Amino acid sequence: MKLAVSIGDPNGIGPAIALLGHEKLRAFCRPLYLVHPKLIQHAADLLGIKVPDDFDTHAPSCAPCPVTPGQISAEAGAYSFASFTQGVRLCQEGLADALLTLPIHKTAWQKAGIGYKGHTDALRDFFKQEAIMMLGCEKLFVGLFTEHIPLRHVPKAVEKERLVDFLKRFEEETKARKIGVLGLNPHAGDGGVLGSEERIIEAAIAEADGGRGVFEGPLVPDVAFTPAMRKRFTYYVAMYHDQGLAPLKALYFDESINVSLNLPILRVSVDHGTAFDIAYRADQTISLQSYLQAARYAAEKVSAKSGARR
Amino acid sequence: MKLAVSIGDPNGIGPAIALLGHEKLRAFCRPLYLVHPKLIQHAADLLGIKVPDDFDTHAPSCAPCPVTPGQISAEAGAYSFASFTQGVRLCQEGLADALLTLPIHKTAWQKAGIGYKGHTDALRDFFKQEAIMMLGCEKLFVGLFTEHIPLRHVPKAVEKERLVDFLKRFEEETKARKIGVLGLNPHAGDGGVLGSEERIIEAAIAEADGGRGVFEGPLVPDVAFTPAMRKRFTYYVAMYHDQGLAPLKALYFDESINVSLNLPILRVSVDHGTAFDIAYRADQTISLQSYLQAARYAAEKVSAKSGARR
Repeated sequence: MKLAVSIGDPNGIGPAIALLGHEKLRAFCRPLYLVHPKLIQHAADLLGIKVPDDFDTHAPSCAPCPVTPGQISAEAGAYSFASFTQGVRLCQEGLADALLTLPIHKTAWQKAGIGYKGHTDALRDFFKQEAIMMLGCEKLFVGLFTEHIPLRHVPKAVEKERLVDFLKRFEEETKARKIGVLGLNPHAGDGGVLGSEERIIEAAIAEADGGRGVFEGPLVPDVAFTPAMRKRFTYYVAMYHDQGLAPLKALYFDESINVSLNLPILRVSVDHGTAFDIAYRADQTISLQSYLQAARYAAEKVSAKSGARR
Repeated sequence: MKLAVSIGDPNGIGPAIALLGHEKLRAFCRPLYLVHPKLIQHAADLLGIKVPDDFDTHAPSCAPCPVTPGQISAEAGAYSFASFTQGVRLCQEGLADALLTLPIHKTAWQKAGIGYKGHTDALRDFFKQEAIMMLGCEKLFVGLFTEHIPLRHVPKAVEKERLVDFLKRFEEETKARKIGVLGLNPHAGDGGVLGSEERIIEAAIAEADGGRGVFEGPLVPDVAFTPAMRKRFTYYVAMYHDQGLAPLKALYFDESINVSLNLPILRVSVDHGTAFDIAYRADQTISLQSYLQAARYAAEKVSAKSGARR
């Protein structure tokens, strides 16, 4: 399995993760790093480590940028975007089976004049398809029905047709046999006393499920993630960003990954940022958990798919 | 320390908890159960257990009602309300140091013509004071700035003066030396791109804190409860119900309790409902964790207060 790895912002912890995680990745896939040999060598020198001999690189179609630890720069923004788009291209051309993205810095992208808020946003535009953001780990995955919008816009975004469509795609992509769908209001509206959006959610669940018993809900949000409920569900659909991600990150912060569903390519990502504050610092330890989980998830999906094709 | 225990809905798990938890409670306080001896005897017979010899009761000022396991009834609703108000009275008259309430059933209260949504709502009205709802356990407490309102009403409820007042009272009541205040929007508004209520929250924090460094925020909601953040904060203020309670219950469901702050009496409660589905069933185990934690919390607060008075 060939895994394209975009390097992320060179001034953050992306290069260190790629270098330190290489051996573990090699155990189950063939990583292909979208970075100039010169740049990764510079990063390795700053980190005081060696670039592994079998560290396969594929340079993005731009000049390498200097590494300036912890700095927000337009060059680094442009470089991380080029690395990312190169990875997308390799997947489209069948030269890689999946893309693992290391963290970019949003302000660096802005400085470089890149008009996307992040990877997912860019992927939506590249493919003109409604990518679904799912975060989690093998114990708990949460799909986000709404994502980066102000909380005050969330209630009106709960529309039946859009939700039916979302639920169907989420099921199709995850192949989950049981999916918990959260309500919107405290106590899931408590029979209408605390909000009425649950009627829309109920109707959407009924239509997407068609009596098959795959979808359950609207679940009472504050008790949806208790230990007893997590025995019943591994896959959840949250109505908004923090509803799903706060419980997920309270429970499984280090091991969580980010998966883009409903796209022509398989893209996974670490669930953390560039961590400029600890980048290239000898006194800081960088967790590889999310990175390795993301790579493993991609490897499993690819092998399941090729198994299904046979 | 004398602890008044209101019995909750007699058809739920309240009487079983009082009976089964008695010996453990006796180890650190003097419980006084607000229930007729005849009613608790009936409950004990149904449960096939004995009423302990030193089970002190103080009958509410109403007739005892029959116990009908798992049934919603007006009589049971009226009885649980009478038991509760009796407990409030004992605390007001100094005959008890704190009140521990066992769960009531909201619909049973409605059937009995009681116009309150629950204990906290009633306490607000009795004392004409803005009770603060705090839930949690010794590892993590969350105060709720807004509670039982539809999510769509939450953003406009974030008003500076009300929040300043809430923060001051929360600090005064908890004596916490560090309090994390959550933002409202994803990524705490991300500099205004994802909502602007964080500016109000920021201003309220600045005013309540006055440069003392007690309050911190607005915290990014989805990462406020990660293990690293929980090392920094034990006390949090959430802007809305599920923002605070979903992470809390994901982490510490069984041991969580409910505390009413900012009232002339000290009132604690279990953080679960009447559990009609398992009430009086020999094949079901009832967790006493939340009950015992609530009693212990009350005992500690009372002893801290009397220590301060000396």
